[in-house]
Amino acid sequence: MEQNVEFTHCYYLTAGEAGAQSSMPLTLLVQRVIEVATEHANALGIGYATLSVHGIAWVLSKISIEMQRYPDINEDYCLTTWIESYNRRFCDRCFAVTGGDGQPIGYIRTMWTAIDVERRCVADLTAFEQDAFPVSSRSCPVAKPVRLPALPADASVQDYTFKYCDIDFNRHVNSVRYLALVLNHWPLDHFDHNTIRRIDICYHHECHFGQTVQLRVASQGHESECEIVHDGVRAVGLRISWAPRAVTAR
Amino acid sequence: MEQNVEFTHCYYLTAGEAGAQSSMPLTLLVQRVIEVATEHANALGIGYATLSVHGIAWVLSKISIEMQRYPDINEDYCLTTWIESYNRRFCDRCFAVTGGDGQPIGYIRTMWTAIDVERRCVADLTAFEQDAFPVSSRSCPVAKPVRLPALPADASVQDYTFKYCDIDFNRHVNSVRYLALVLNHWPLDHFDHNTIRRIDICYHHECHFGQTVQLRVASQGHESECEIVHDGVRAVGLRISWAPRAVTAR
Repeated sequence: MEQNVEFTHCYYLTAGEAGAQSSMPLTLLVQRVIEVATEHANALGIGYATLSVHGIAWVLSKISIEMQRYPDINEDYCLTTWIESYNRRFCDRCFAVTGGDGQPIGYIRTMWTAIDVERRCVADLTAFEQDAFPVSSRSCPVAKPVRLPALPADASVQDYTFKYCDIDFNRHVNSVRYLALVLNHWPLDHFDHNTIRRIDICYHHECHFGQTVQLRVASQGHESECEIVHDGVRAVGLRISWAPRAVTAR
Repeated sequence: MEQNVEFTHCYYLTAGEAGAQSSMPLTLLVQRVIEVATEHANALGIGYATLSVHGIAWVLSKISIEMQRYPDINEDYCLTTWIESYNRRFCDRCFAVTGGDGQPIGYIRTMWTAIDVERRCVADLTAFEQDAFPVSSRSCPVAKPVRLPALPADASVQDYTFKYCDIDFNRHVNSVRYLALVLNHWPLDHFDHNTIRRIDICYHHECHFGQTVQLRVASQGHESECEIVHDGVRAVGLRISWAPRAVTAR
């Protein structure tokens, strides 16, 4: 399994995939992270095909992204992933993102949980450990996320009801759709002048079709704290560090 | 250019990409169509990189999709595209979709318009014609779409305001997001029991960030007629033919 310690997938950003600032949208980056993690897991024999037979599925639990910049239209970029550590319930997986010149443009830290699909609880991966989780000695230069405190009482509140296109094959809300819901809080103009330098997303509880949640946002300086609340309980917590965009997009 | 008459890109459907019915969502299929058209245009030297220098960009004008079935999780699938015809304003492009066994599972017909990015009007492609548009003799077994009539006065009406994640690099609403808006009209349960056999989408007028549109839907039998209306004018028209889903997804 030595050859699978690291796994790389290269892409290029098509015009149709680019966001309003002519670069890779953060939602697509998270989608690629999930994709490349899936491919690496498949190559290791601990992917969807193997686990689904045992009623188990991987679920993204936490993701922390630090980007110096995002790939541009028609730019080649690669995601390289490796497992930093694991135990029988979780798997810590890192990613390096390189741009068209092969230089790093960002790093990503993720934590994955294996869930029992029927019982909707954490599954036990002991049976799959063995050689199937090759741990890399490569370090991940992204600090682990700090727990998001309770948001101030005066945080903004906005309702949203999850719809058909928000739902994935696990029959819960797709990890990327929570992020889109949060990003949609800001107007287009905000993204023309600001870029996301770091984001931490922590998925606490799954949401389902037809549920109405509250998006709460509190911003101070270059930091925004956000949460998606269902039935009074935080389902997803997010922290965003903004940086001024060097050049105005248009 | 003979070698570029047809262009094929193969993918496989990752678990994370699958929709609630454990198969390829229609929104992803449209995204792939745009992607493969872009790649073929790039290979022919009539892609984003070439046209953007002249202030021109391709915009999807019409798409008609006929699917016998959609790729399943972990299934390999390919999109093969070819140009059926073109003139100095439009390009008709077809696609065959094959499944994991190499057999066709659907066909797609698209019409593309080159727009002048600054003036927001149709551009003239005469300068790019020459050898760069190799027309294939392969036929496209998808009938051209019939114009959607005015919807009945009692069609359902629902408001939606376009947000940050709906906007693409052309600074207008992404073609896929109009489709998501329409599909979100139906509950999850509807998709568990029905599948889309054919859909026609006609993009008439572009919408922009912050605009509020009305989604109008009128269904009769297995047919739904839909329109997205801005300022009293139809921006996008859609016709959907539903078929009962053979096996209930869950």
